[in-house]
Amino acid sequence: MRESARPQWTDPNCPVARATDLFGDRWSMLIIRDAMDGARTFTDFQQRTGIARNVLTDRLRRLIGYGLMAQVDAPAGKRKHYELTAAGEDLFPVVLALRHWGEEHAFGDGEGHSTLVDATGASVTAPEPLGTDGTPLTSRNTRVVR
Amino acid sequence: MRESARPQWTDPNCPVARATDLFGDRWSMLIIRDAMDGARTFTDFQQRTGIARNVLTDRLRRLIGYGLMAQVDAPAGKRKHYELTAAGEDLFPVVLALRHWGEEHAFGDGEGHSTLVDATGASVTAPEPLGTDGTPLTSRNTRVVR
Repeated sequence: MRESARPQWTDPNCPVARATDLFGDRWSMLIIRDAMDGARTFTDFQQRTGIARNVLTDRLRRLIGYGLMAQVDAPAGKRKHYELTAAGEDLFPVVLALRHWGEEHAFGDGEGHSTLVDATGASVTAPEPLGTDGTPLTSRNTRVVR
Repeated sequence: MRESARPQWTDPNCPVARATDLFGDRWSMLIIRDAMDGARTFTDFQQRTGIARNVLTDRLRRLIGYGLMAQVDAPAGKRKHYELTAAGEDLFPVVLALRHWGEEHAFGDGEGHSTLVDATGASVTAPEPLGTDGTPLTSRNTRVVR
């Protein structure tokens, strides 16, 4: 991330807050989701999210400025493509955790939803956070040290 | 979640998008973070996030409507407290994944940040998503099935 591109941090000491400052708005998150799912061109993102063009332009510029996406050369005669950088790819566990929560809590009985599968076609589940002794971690048995 | 409280879904089929519709804005995420870290009163949230009072009122109302937080009785003579519901507590892996990414990618050399520790005081790390055969999962070896 270029120093100049940094947002004004809401809470400079907190990694959760910094992450949220960088991509924690609905459209940025959906752009990242779609890039992980193969969207590459401005039109890809526009059609998948239904986002307004001026907002999409702003969010792509911001994600590039923050180092989460990059513009790359496309086949001859085509406009440049947008791709996740390594830092953007590292958001996979965040998107997976969002998916897992959404599947559990944001669908009613009988409502269908997309699923994520691995290379063998097996459904992917999000890993459960565990302590060093194997205890499932929650907000109740962890604490923030400043 | 009460049917009436549901947002207009941006992409009804996608669990990531539904999750993002429910709490994917910067302030909602920071309110959830602070509730996990022990914030209970309106003033707690206001002071920790620095959020404007009218925005905080709106976000708390929304999180309650969506079933992620609830108002509970406080000790006699005090205003009601705000607590995460079970669905809200289940956001712990999302917040942990955000924290992990933030620690890795949102701090420069020598910049300090808060850490999360378990009951023994050991630093908590986010679990890596793995396939059934133990391969680390990424956006490149998984795909969305609609």
